[in-house]
Amino acid sequence: MDRTRFSLGENDAPTTWYNLAADLPGAPPAPALNPKTHQPLTRAEMAHTMPEPLIEQELSTEREIEIPDAVRELYALWRPSPLFRARRLERALGTPARIYYKYEGGAPTGSHKPNTAIPQAYYNKLAGKTGLVTETGAGQWGSATALAASFFGMTAKVYMVKVSFEQKPYRRALMETYGARCTPSPSTETEVGRKILADDPDCPGSLGIATSEALEAFAQDPDLGYVLGSAANHVLLHQTVIGQEAIRQMELAEDYPDIVVGCSGGGSNLAGLSFPFLGERLRGGRDVRVIAVEPAACPTLTQGTIAYDYADTGRLGPLFRMHTLGHGFVPPAVHAGGLRAHGIGPLVSRCVEDGLMEARAVPQTDCFEAGVRFARTEGIVPAPESTHAIRVAVDEALRCREEGTAKTILFGLSGHGHFDLAAYDRYFAGTLADDRPDEALLADAADGIPLVGRG
Amino acid sequence: MDRTRFSLGENDAPTTWYNLAADLPGAPPAPALNPKTHQPLTRAEMAHTMPEPLIEQELSTEREIEIPDAVRELYALWRPSPLFRARRLERALGTPARIYYKYEGGAPTGSHKPNTAIPQAYYNKLAGKTGLVTETGAGQWGSATALAASFFGMTAKVYMVKVSFEQKPYRRALMETYGARCTPSPSTETEVGRKILADDPDCPGSLGIATSEALEAFAQDPDLGYVLGSAANHVLLHQTVIGQEAIRQMELAEDYPDIVVGCSGGGSNLAGLSFPFLGERLRGGRDVRVIAVEPAACPTLTQGTIAYDYADTGRLGPLFRMHTLGHGFVPPAVHAGGLRAHGIGPLVSRCVEDGLMEARAVPQTDCFEAGVRFARTEGIVPAPESTHAIRVAVDEALRCREEGTAKTILFGLSGHGHFDLAAYDRYFAGTLADDRPDEALLADAADGIPLVGRG
Repeated sequence: MDRTRFSLGENDAPTTWYNLAADLPGAPPAPALNPKTHQPLTRAEMAHTMPEPLIEQELSTEREIEIPDAVRELYALWRPSPLFRARRLERALGTPARIYYKYEGGAPTGSHKPNTAIPQAYYNKLAGKTGLVTETGAGQWGSATALAASFFGMTAKVYMVKVSFEQKPYRRALMETYGARCTPSPSTETEVGRKILADDPDCPGSLGIATSEALEAFAQDPDLGYVLGSAANHVLLHQTVIGQEAIRQMELAEDYPDIVVGCSGGGSNLAGLSFPFLGERLRGGRDVRVIAVEPAACPTLTQGTIAYDYADTGRLGPLFRMHTLGHGFVPPAVHAGGLRAHGIGPLVSRCVEDGLMEARAVPQTDCFEAGVRFARTEGIVPAPESTHAIRVAVDEALRCREEGTAKTILFGLSGHGHFDLAAYDRYFAGTLADDRPDEALLADAADGIPLVGRG
Repeated sequence: MDRTRFSLGENDAPTTWYNLAADLPGAPPAPALNPKTHQPLTRAEMAHTMPEPLIEQELSTEREIEIPDAVRELYALWRPSPLFRARRLERALGTPARIYYKYEGGAPTGSHKPNTAIPQAYYNKLAGKTGLVTETGAGQWGSATALAASFFGMTAKVYMVKVSFEQKPYRRALMETYGARCTPSPSTETEVGRKILADDPDCPGSLGIATSEALEAFAQDPDLGYVLGSAANHVLLHQTVIGQEAIRQMELAEDYPDIVVGCSGGGSNLAGLSFPFLGERLRGGRDVRVIAVEPAACPTLTQGTIAYDYADTGRLGPLFRMHTLGHGFVPPAVHAGGLRAHGIGPLVSRCVEDGLMEARAVPQTDCFEAGVRFARTEGIVPAPESTHAIRVAVDEALRCREEGTAKTILFGLSGHGHFDLAAYDRYFAGTLADDRPDEALLADAADGIPLVGRG
């Protein structure tokens, strides 16, 4: 019988998170900047928004950071997550390549997001917070926050982009089932929201606006902790359980990836899978190609500028040095809502800048084509975000067929698509558009990137 | 760190299915009857609808039946499934009881149904069939059939009860993503469907009607295999991987259940978990109470008659000796669509008749209350069907608290509720009804039970 699953027992779960900053050659990662002074954020300033242990993790250059027992106990609900060899997909492609995937859809909310929601909730609880507040686009992050809050007996308040709130009632219902309160953004609950609604009562919302509302709500209630779903160093750090497990599972498979592929929005899923492999490479291990895959509709890594920019539209939060399309950029409404990010986590950006990672942009219909092929051979219906990684894994496997090379390809299957079947419906109906951003809009947004520290 | 997950590696997966018929004391299970002659179905008659290996399994009294390698390889996609100790729920209940649950929601379609869809597809493929046809109510079974067909390169045709087809577009989209064709029933594709639509163009459909349409389509195309989702001996057999794994996992936990709880419709999930434990008991092992939990809206085990009756409304299929409310009974539209069955698998019925199992009926709002409590402590949002098992597990744990006894309770969490969040929405809105069947309707339906072999 061909072996297809490589499982780790709960005793083989990682006990530490892996911090890539410890192994990065060259200058230390660029610091975040205060949005008012444009000077590096101090610890004291960071303490306004984050509990001490998370600040420590955000700034740390230690290689290994211990995962608290309470977090590991909750991880055990779905971790270690399985790693599979996609033998049926390989056969269908007629490729000599060996394709593996690491599957995060077994988490209670169906994606990798709880890997960081749980520790963020934990540290906020330790710091005396009784509730969490955050923003969400398509709802993956909001669901994970709602779940994590319920585990620690905390309240959760989620500002959800209004158009998604209306299009995805199941995501809202999932958050409410966990006891969270979910509000369509822009709302009348905040100054920011009221101002926007006064200008445009039909405003469909955006992640930038929702972030501003969450930050405003956070600022007004000292009992609330603000948590975030991607991009920040500590968020990427928490996700490295994925790649650490994958390294051990590839050992069980007696194989090692030549290529690691991950979909890329804010970068946390990609970093979670790839950073531990990059760490091995940087410490003298095997060479591994890492490919970040983004939607053609939001080509942050392939067409963005490397510069200091805001993560939020409202310019309330700090500036980060990263690939950015400009904080004013609003990408076309592709179904991979989790990848519609104008900027990317600074550590991922740095990896691309330093040539440790490649980036590729793919149109969504090509991704759905690969996603359907995957569902029909491997059995799991992937989230639209994850289909981006599948598309490139398939393309690389087809290249192996052409070249007659038997490479080992590992990709991240970041979540299942059970909440996204309306998108598959549209794909089959032929009504999915392959919108690319208008060149003039891209240029406008790039013009909005501040001049701070451009080099 | 408290251990909460008890995992088996892929090498610890069962290699055989367990057949309770080998250990049942007393007379052999009552045979199915030909719907026309009312004589026991012959093998030759069964061969019209089932490939030889499935007939063999349907009639076998061997204790262990080998699982083909091709099936085990596909099971490995989510099996062995995890068994958890619900420590957070225990703490929330303040009970001295130890509560465990076996989780089947990690399957690609989110429930236990693929455990039998895959072997049924496999044997039909071996028999030269190129496609599968079946009926589905809420869509769990149709999804599993679509998945299994895609694994073996077969077509799949699913007649889905029209009201569910319209209420649950995501379930239909899931089937189509796997390449299946899904038709709302009654349809104009069959004689049966056309006749019903002529009488009542707005007919919302029923599982009985959908079954008749699937059987008609099957009869007209020799390339199609007909597959079924519950009740039959071979279906229950395939599900016993659940309980066999659970026995080994309880060993890992160094514990053994005093009580095993499962939700009960056609009986396959309940049997899959409990039969291996009952087998141990019957072979001189430890005493274990098994509780079958059904919806108060469809009290087959608690208010049904033990008699020979049809499984389908159209009386096209055989008669089975079972607890039945009458084949004409249409239960109120509770959200646990998978439990709306007028009859139950003959082997489960026999277990209740012989006192090997107890049965309990619970109203749906009580079940959702328990389901929400479970989601907020354990993190997994359960399918409405599964909340029935949770309700009784919680009730038994609360009884332990009252009595100061530390019993071990194991229940089956047959699926996740990601496709059922509209039902949770209605629960929170307070618009869920606790419909019970009208006494006059129950009496009418009972009158329709044929007089064949009533004892």
